[in-house]
Amino acid sequence: MKITKSHLDECHERIKKHIHLTPVLTSRLIDNIAGANLFFKCENFQRMGAFKMRGAVNAILQLDEESRKKGVITHSSGNFAQALSLAAKSIGAPAYIVMPSNAPRVKINAVKEYGGNISICPATLKDREKTTDALAKETGATFIHPSNDNNVILGQGTAAKELLENQPDLDIIVTPVGGGGLIAGTALAAKFYGDLCTVIGGEPKEVDDAYRSLISGKIETNSSTNTIADGLRTNLGDINFPIILNEVEKIIRVEEKEIIDALRLIWERMKIIVEPSSAVALAAIIKEPETFKSKKVGIIISGGNVDLSALPF
Amino acid sequence: MKITKSHLDECHERIKKHIHLTPVLTSRLIDNIAGANLFFKCENFQRMGAFKMRGAVNAILQLDEESRKKGVITHSSGNFAQALSLAAKSIGAPAYIVMPSNAPRVKINAVKEYGGNISICPATLKDREKTTDALAKETGATFIHPSNDNNVILGQGTAAKELLENQPDLDIIVTPVGGGGLIAGTALAAKFYGDLCTVIGGEPKEVDDAYRSLISGKIETNSSTNTIADGLRTNLGDINFPIILNEVEKIIRVEEKEIIDALRLIWERMKIIVEPSSAVALAAIIKEPETFKSKKVGIIISGGNVDLSALPF
Repeated sequence: MKITKSHLDECHERIKKHIHLTPVLTSRLIDNIAGANLFFKCENFQRMGAFKMRGAVNAILQLDEESRKKGVITHSSGNFAQALSLAAKSIGAPAYIVMPSNAPRVKINAVKEYGGNISICPATLKDREKTTDALAKETGATFIHPSNDNNVILGQGTAAKELLENQPDLDIIVTPVGGGGLIAGTALAAKFYGDLCTVIGGEPKEVDDAYRSLISGKIETNSSTNTIADGLRTNLGDINFPIILNEVEKIIRVEEKEIIDALRLIWERMKIIVEPSSAVALAAIIKEPETFKSKKVGIIISGGNVDLSALPF
Repeated sequence: MKITKSHLDECHERIKKHIHLTPVLTSRLIDNIAGANLFFKCENFQRMGAFKMRGAVNAILQLDEESRKKGVITHSSGNFAQALSLAAKSIGAPAYIVMPSNAPRVKINAVKEYGGNISICPATLKDREKTTDALAKETGATFIHPSNDNNVILGQGTAAKELLENQPDLDIIVTPVGGGGLIAGTALAAKFYGDLCTVIGGEPKEVDDAYRSLISGKIETNSSTNTIADGLRTNLGDINFPIILNEVEKIIRVEEKEIIDALRLIWERMKIIVEPSSAVALAAIIKEPETFKSKKVGIIISGGNVDLSALPF
């Protein structure tokens, strides 16, 4: 499927009543530090606290009535588990979430709160997939991948669409890069709605699979996932990677300390709670001032779900 | 001086270009917990991170040109020191801030950053006053009290004025109570612009001087100041107390744990950074549900300046 502007237009109309139109914030002080004009698209204020709500809603709304009744299923211990649960509840479909036995209690509770039906499985990828397959067969639920799915990519792209409707003359949009759904959707939105607007990714050096993938031209993986940006530990997929390869300008890698410094800057100066993954985008801008100097730069603040009991400050 | 509606109208016009019109946020989830419709006036997004900017700007703008040139002076280690510094810089006047030798380095640096001229004195009230008096004499600067000053009270009242312009049919506005400037200004704004809108204070039980003052009819003091709400450790003054006595409905006292729970609720659910003092107002609402049941309730979120290295979570 080649995604067109009409697909993204239709997607946005489709999901609108299930999502918040999140605000775009600015900070004179951070502009001074960055030497650029920054526009923060605050998906931390999105329903369930992250942009993932958009893709989840779109994926479910694309199912026919029969499939919706049977529900949706995914395996995730992060924001997508919560997003799929709340999106399904909002639309009126069951959601089945397979979570590893070592998932933090706080995340299991969040999924429960949003109405997801949880199945706990042993903490290996093989077990996760096996449990998910069996449960999908049993329930007839449709599997939705958190990032490697055209409907999910389209949904995530609506955040950048809204940002460009608010600030049509952005030169660059920066997003964090994890599984690739957000940056792929953002790159499409920039192409369709921007005026020569390019897209740059920010990625932790500790999990720089996307950086290496853009160089090698094939999907690379990480041998370890030792980053505070817990939303960015995943790899790209075969559906989003071609979009990223074609449409994304480059990926800037940042150190863990740079992520924490950017996180603190946003918390202290903007007085908003954002996830470490979101701070990766600002860290990338601060790291390469020559790329962004005096430009109008959008940043997708991906989410605000943090464990306040485990802060890096 | 008897404060009238015209005074508050004029004050608001006077200070407008030096302050932010802060947003009013809502949260369906917190509404459900509180059993009321809450409207959060977010002064944590105000310049320098707190409502105190409003009163400081108004007090300086009321000085004649000669006095402005000589500058303003206060003794404070909290938000008012930062507010007076930034307000003076914004208007083009010098600010002299007397701070005790045991003031946290982070607060001293913040005042410096906003352009305040700092004098460090020994950490007793007597020394603070002596140093302030001597410096005022030497420089000719005008002393501005952080809360017991009609121009400061007027300035602080503009937050509630804006809130009522946004939500004219509020039944109640709740503010934290510290030195009394915010709640006095809020009570006047509710009287002038509200439609039978009453004002209720939230106060930590550990420093319940205002609660006791409303009962005894005279200004009471605290024998200890053992609360996390560091902005609320001060006592009322002879200028704001008569306004509070006449215009405030009641004061609700909350325990330290209730403050921390409310703080966590705002951070986790609204994804905004607020000070413990601000959480006192929400804690009061949650503590007395019968008072607020199904009402439209405004909350002044007083500020967002917290030390991220010393969180209670």
